[in-house]
Amino acid sequence: MRIAELSRRSATSIPSIKYYLREGLIPGGRTTGRNQADYDEAHVRRLRLIRALVDVGGLSIAAVRDVLAAVDNPDLPGHDLLGIAHHAVSPTPARRDPDDPRWQAAREEVVTLIGERGWLVSPCSPALDVAADAIAAMRALDQADLLSSLPTYVEAVERMAAWEVAAVLARGEPARMVEGLVTGTILGEILIGALRRLAQEAESARLQGLTAPE
Amino acid sequence: MRIAELSRRSATSIPSIKYYLREGLIPGGRTTGRNQADYDEAHVRRLRLIRALVDVGGLSIAAVRDVLAAVDNPDLPGHDLLGIAHHAVSPTPARRDPDDPRWQAAREEVVTLIGERGWLVSPCSPALDVAADAIAAMRALDQADLLSSLPTYVEAVERMAAWEVAAVLARGEPARMVEGLVTGTILGEILIGALRRLAQEAESARLQGLTAPE
Repeated sequence: MRIAELSRRSATSIPSIKYYLREGLIPGGRTTGRNQADYDEAHVRRLRLIRALVDVGGLSIAAVRDVLAAVDNPDLPGHDLLGIAHHAVSPTPARRDPDDPRWQAAREEVVTLIGERGWLVSPCSPALDVAADAIAAMRALDQADLLSSLPTYVEAVERMAAWEVAAVLARGEPARMVEGLVTGTILGEILIGALRRLAQEAESARLQGLTAPE
Repeated sequence: MRIAELSRRSATSIPSIKYYLREGLIPGGRTTGRNQADYDEAHVRRLRLIRALVDVGGLSIAAVRDVLAAVDNPDLPGHDLLGIAHHAVSPTPARRDPDDPRWQAAREEVVTLIGERGWLVSPCSPALDVAADAIAAMRALDQADLLSSLPTYVEAVERMAAWEVAAVLARGEPARMVEGLVTGTILGEILIGALRRLAQEAESARLQGLTAPE
């Protein structure tokens, strides 16, 4: 297909495609004439993956390059591939003081919590630090009573993860797995957050005995 | 107490306190001399609430003013108070096309889903739109298979909300309820997101038969 069709099929603008070609993120097409090249399905799939990484994951071009290298490495186990994609979509928040004993205590609490649950997680997982950030902030703001819902959270995310990881691994193809992990993690977070707010509203209405208008 | 102690107790800088005084977000202290005023526990609590709204909720001063007016309204039912706080912490995302039939279909899907569950939710709830954003984006990116986890999400957030709303309502005092709702919604979202990533990592490790190092 010509670049115009590639653009349409991948929902990526022609200037963006040319930029990714220059950056070496997608291979060149088969030359069919002066200033003309032919592209195939592999180009469409690769552009869709790049779009998910950039638009949804918010990755820099350098970070996209690292993820694509992992996708293209046939010797990489699936678990490591998912780990690389996870790391890539986990930015470090601006405010964090790892020397603060209250932050360290919160992190230790997270490690203990997931250890009791039998979760096997790398000690370098950025999500460990993010969970500690949230717990330390809740305590600092005198909201520790809300942390009574931690066991409910742990049980809930375990059920979610069982579905999600199975759905992603079922895809088989590494590029599609990474695409699913990135979009599922980030868009899933937005979706779960929105559903949780709706559930809170419904629960508040229920407790106060409100009923739907006739 | 003097302003220095108020600053320390509320973890708010003196310039910020003076700014909130000028903006009328906190009442003035009792004048005890030229350029001196005495503050009490009510000032500490109010400043902590403002800090939660500004630092955690990301609210503008105008939005903080609206939430404080609701907190100070003794005739407002608790459910409406929570609704105002919820709205205040729900920004409209930049990209959304409400005329796009695919977005409208996604929104209809959310309305049906929560209707089947018996949730009583206002048709103006911003979270309805946010959930539609995420679902429409997943479909546009060819990730519809991941939406098979929607029923799991709905069930999970229902359990979470039951705990959370009960904990917030148990506080009784309107200011503390709003504080709990804002911090619990926003920091809770970060915490749940981080725990979910850890659960995904653990599930991926489990499925691939990895075991902890000795």
